[in-house]
Amino acid sequence: MIVVKVGGSEGIDYDAVCADIARLWQGGQRLILVHGGSSQTNAVAEALGHPPKFITSPSGYTSRLSDKKTIEIFEMVYCGKMNKMIVEKLQKLGVNAVGLSGIDGGVWRGKRKKAVRAVDEDGRKFVVRDNYTGTVEEINTDLLNMLLDGGYLPVLTPPAISFEGEAINVDGDRGSAETARALQATDLIILSNIPGVLTAFPDESSLLKEIQFDDIDHVAKTYAEGRMRIKLLGAKEAIEGGVGRVVLGDARIERPVAAAVAGQGTVITR
Amino acid sequence: MIVVKVGGSEGIDYDAVCADIARLWQGGQRLILVHGGSSQTNAVAEALGHPPKFITSPSGYTSRLSDKKTIEIFEMVYCGKMNKMIVEKLQKLGVNAVGLSGIDGGVWRGKRKKAVRAVDEDGRKFVVRDNYTGTVEEINTDLLNMLLDGGYLPVLTPPAISFEGEAINVDGDRGSAETARALQATDLIILSNIPGVLTAFPDESSLLKEIQFDDIDHVAKTYAEGRMRIKLLGAKEAIEGGVGRVVLGDARIERPVAAAVAGQGTVITR
Repeated sequence: MIVVKVGGSEGIDYDAVCADIARLWQGGQRLILVHGGSSQTNAVAEALGHPPKFITSPSGYTSRLSDKKTIEIFEMVYCGKMNKMIVEKLQKLGVNAVGLSGIDGGVWRGKRKKAVRAVDEDGRKFVVRDNYTGTVEEINTDLLNMLLDGGYLPVLTPPAISFEGEAINVDGDRGSAETARALQATDLIILSNIPGVLTAFPDESSLLKEIQFDDIDHVAKTYAEGRMRIKLLGAKEAIEGGVGRVVLGDARIERPVAAAVAGQGTVITR
Repeated sequence: MIVVKVGGSEGIDYDAVCADIARLWQGGQRLILVHGGSSQTNAVAEALGHPPKFITSPSGYTSRLSDKKTIEIFEMVYCGKMNKMIVEKLQKLGVNAVGLSGIDGGVWRGKRKKAVRAVDEDGRKFVVRDNYTGTVEEINTDLLNMLLDGGYLPVLTPPAISFEGEAINVDGDRGSAETARALQATDLIILSNIPGVLTAFPDESSLLKEIQFDDIDHVAKTYAEGRMRIKLLGAKEAIEGGVGRVVLGDARIERPVAAAVAGQGTVITR
């Protein structure tokens, strides 16, 4: 069992990702695909007159400010545009994919953070309340296994659903990590528009090829910022939970999934 | 087994529909919910600078001109905004709903009409080619039954998928009819923003309370226009295929599904 997460940033080659997923699936690999849609969401939100806003937590993580209207736009892009684009590509390749958000069947459940602490540009702290965000805590593995056993490839995307039944924006990397953990996946592959952890970002020749589990925190603090820090946090959670290996790989290359499975990128093990 | 279709026109009370669906489901009724999203799609398409266009067939049916960009917007609204809104409402009511488009798991498969004949305002015929439309011909009842047996309520929406693996715009009423037929439903309930077939549209006191199967064509020709003609076509296909009863009901009232099940609206039987 492997879980593949492909990001939503610019430059990602979804045709190549889907072609690779189809090859693996048709070769008998049990797998789940998770995807994002961040850059498209920004563009659509702008066009619809509700431009994206981001907040930074006191510990330095950036996340999308998710009021009700933002969640609606988020669902349009993640669950509508991106999810159906990917499912259609896979169907065209003969893979019987089924797209699901974390809401559907309560695949991804978590607690909504009703009050989120943030810091402004001057370092002043404030609290955000009209915000629908949270973290994935429970995975409906029954539904995922039922689909897999039935020959369907699940294609998952945020949002998740709170224990009170509200759609909540969650981080897709950490959702993938939790999914991989719950399904006891051998591998979690996280693909984005860079080759992995770079010790001298954005210099791609500074790729860090291996990280030992015990060094994750150090690497995250020393080299990684923003999105990559969250990926490393996800990697840590996955390996702590029993996932064999996490690979942070490049989604812009020709055989992105196969390359990552073969160890190209940043490989994290215990 | 019943199939409930709720339209996408203005005035529909989705809270009331979902509350009723939850009551039926929690009372042990096996059911599938199908929904539309037409008016929202028009609004979003306008906002995104790709205003909707409609074409009229030589036999007088109106349909959305569905180029690739329109299909993408269509998916954003039907599969993103509307589908997840409904699934979230049901989840909040304790129903473990799973939203699916016709693409997912090939739930709705059909032939793409690569060339569509249309007539312009002056009655001149022309052919449209950059158009992704079709009609639902095959239902993946295995997937639907697997979900139902697992305790999940399927919430279905267009588009469907062509035999070549392309997303195609299909009529939701006829898709519901085909679904009800394939599942040998006892009832097909089609709810919209009018009370049923009106013999003097838009006078709601002119509701036609019953139609015998053999009279459908006559009624469609005499009283019904546009959307209602398609609903009657769907009703005819459903009953021909073995569905016991079709009720065309009102989705603007307080207990819309229960009322229709109780026979309020236009009841069509053999």
